[in-house]
This record gives sequence, structure tokens and C-alpha cells, in this order.
Amino acid sequence: MARNTERRAALVDAAVAVLAREGARGLTFRAVDAEAAVPVGTASNYFSDRDDLLNQVDTHLHRRLAPDPAVLAGLLAAPRDRALVLEFMRDLLGRATRDRTGYLALFEMRLEATRRPTLRASYTASVRGDLEQAMEFHRDAGLPGGDRTVAVLYLAVLGLLLEHLTLPGVLADALPGVAVPDGLLETIVTTIVPDDDDGGDGDREGAGNRA
Amino acid sequence: MARNTERRAALVDAAVAVLAREGARGLTFRAVDAEAAVPVGTASNYFSDRDDLLNQVDTHLHRRLAPDPAVLAGLLAAPRDRALVLEFMRDLLGRATRDRTGYLALFEMRLEATRRPTLRASYTASVRGDLEQAMEFHRDAGLPGGDRTVAVLYLAVLGLLLEHLTLPGVLADALPGVAVPDGLLETIVTTIVPDDDDGGDGDREGAGNRA
Repeated sequence: MARNTERRAALVDAAVAVLAREGARGLTFRAVDAEAAVPVGTASNYFSDRDDLLNQVDTHLHRRLAPDPAVLAGLLAAPRDRALVLEFMRDLLGRATRDRTGYLALFEMRLEATRRPTLRASYTASVRGDLEQAMEFHRDAGLPGGDRTVAVLYLAVLGLLLEHLTLPGVLADALPGVAVPDGLLETIVTTIVPDDDDGGDGDREGAGNRA
Repeated sequence: MARNTERRAALVDAAVAVLAREGARGLTFRAVDAEAAVPVGTASNYFSDRDDLLNQVDTHLHRRLAPDPAVLAGLLAAPRDRALVLEFMRDLLGRATRDRTGYLALFEMRLEATRRPTLRASYTASVRGDLEQAMEFHRDAGLPGGDRTVAVLYLAVLGLLLEHLTLPGVLADALPGVAVPDGLLETIVTTIVPDDDDGGDGDREGAGNRA
């Protein structure tokens, strides 16, 4: 395997662009070479096979779409209330809309995972790790609501990202006075996250977390 | 265009199977002919082009995945409370898990819609119609919560379907004591839908619908 880190990164970015534009089935070493404008055969020097390429796409997107630590640290200076949960979600939504290509590639990876057991295993571990980290972050920060709140919020925001990035016209003006996506994100957070912070152990009886 | 209704339905079902198994890029007239086990060239007698085929897939899946009117009528005999909302969502989840192929094809259609303006326009109108119908149904039935409740519930269930149908291991055992998908669906409904029914005009201040 070739060791040129910069070229490897360029090839993985090219793979993300191909995934988003052509769909998973369009992702071939040849398409990656063409997208990265490198000689045919280059990608095969950097990836042992297609599963290896998809795995490196996952690892790379994880970094590329990650929050800015300075932004997180700045937000954590605020009171640990529902308004702060909304700020964290706004940061996530902002990253997703700024890098729509990256997020569309993630959706393609999900569908490709239904067809490729190796990818399914590695990508499941990766997304599960993100969910567990979100729950831990929420707990450690003392944000309102428990693990169930985080799980429901995670699913609603996943649905929002899928809908808004693929068929934006479905949600546009669906709720009078609610701008999409920003206002709808606020509606999601205020519906799901309790507005107090009396524990957040996931078993409390407060509004929005009764299960 | 050929008129044999039965054969047309078989070709559209074949297209759904190809979409789910191969991804949108694998959907060619030739692949549909092969999947339906009909002579090469048959699909081109039934569909004017690929957009026409995708549009007919949408129309067909709409019927194929629709609720059973008898089941809906039976459920509507119950009190119009949060428990009934959960029953409607259980019926939806049951249809999605019984016809995983149909739902995976819908996700492929979304991603293909990002690449094909004609499909994007027709599919947006179709999904938007479903959302508006869900809001109207909820209002007319006097179920608790308003349009905002329905929108947030719609997005959370969309997220659940995407996660559970593509990477089921992400949610499995993520919440102790919450079975996936049934228990998690109940958690979603109890978190999002208020447990009273004092109006549901979308502007009320009750739990779970504060926005």
C-alpha cells in the first residue's frame, strides 16, 4: 500500500464525491481515479479492495464532519439547559448543510451496508460509537433529559437531515411560521427535550421523557 | 405503451426489487427485464424512459405500503389518545418491517432524486402529500397534539426506519430495557406526543408540544 498521506486523502475525498454524485454502485477504483484526476490504477495502490475504500471513507468522513473542538468548548460555557441542546443541534445541522456532499455519502454508505456484510459491521460500530458518545456527552454535560431523550432526538434529527438533504420541498412551509431547517430544528428540540434539568437519568417522569 | 396491467405490475415490482438490491444506479430496463424474467426489451414497451419508470415505482409503492383501510377503521374505534397514536405508528412500523424491500427502494428513490430533477419534483409532491395527509388525519381524528407534533413524530419515525432498516445493530440494546424497534417506537411516541387531548391546535402549551 502506498504511503503518500496527501494523495490518500485526495483519493478518499474523491470517493466521497463519487458516492454522493453517482451512488454507491458508481464507486469504482476507476471512478475515484478519474474524480481525483490521477492516473488509472492509482486508487488500487492505496486501497486493498472496495471494502477497504469504504472503511476509509467512513473514517475520513468521521473527521471531516466532526464538530470543531473550539466551538464545543465555547458552547459548554453556557448554562446546561434546553437552549444549549438546541445550540449543539444547530452546530450539527450547520455542519451537515455546509457539507451536503459528505452527508449524502453517509446515506449512500448506509444503503450499501445493506448489501455488504463487511461494511455493515464496520459502519454499524462507527455509528453506534457516535450514538453512545452523544449519550455520554449529554450525561457528562448535565444537559436536560436522559439517554432516551438523546436517542429520540438523534432519530428526529436523522430524519430531518435525510428529508432536508434529499427532498427539501417536503418540509418547506409545511408548518406556518416555522422556517426550514432552523425553525423546525427548534421545534424538534422543544418537543423532545424537557425544559428543566432535574436529573436527566433517563427514568424521570418529566415532560418529554415519560417512557 | 403496452396495456397489459398484470405484466406492468410485475415489471414495477421487479424494479422495486432491483432498486433495493442493486441501488438506483443498477436500475436499468435490462435489469428490470431480467428480474421479471421477461424477454429483453419488454420494459421499454411499458415505460417511456427511466423517469417514467421511477414515477410508476413511486405510485405503486404508495399503494403497496399503504395502511389497510379495515385496520385503520378498527383502530379508530378506540379513544383518541396517545395510546392510539402509538397503535397507528405500530401499524406503520409493521408494514415497513414486513416490506423492507419496498422501504429500502424508497430510500434509494430519495437519493436518486438528488440527481434527477424530474424525479425530485414528482417524488417531493408525493411525500409532501403524505405528510399533509398525516397532519389532516391527526387533526380530523382529534388525536393529541397539533401539526408540529405530527411533523416531529414523522421525522423521528423516518429516522427510526432508516436506522433500523439499514444498520439495525446501531439501536439494538442502545437503551437498557427498550426493545428495538417496538419499545423504541413507544419511547418515541411517549416523548413526542402529549398524553392529554385538550385541543391539538398546534399552539398549545402542553408537554411535548411547546414550540
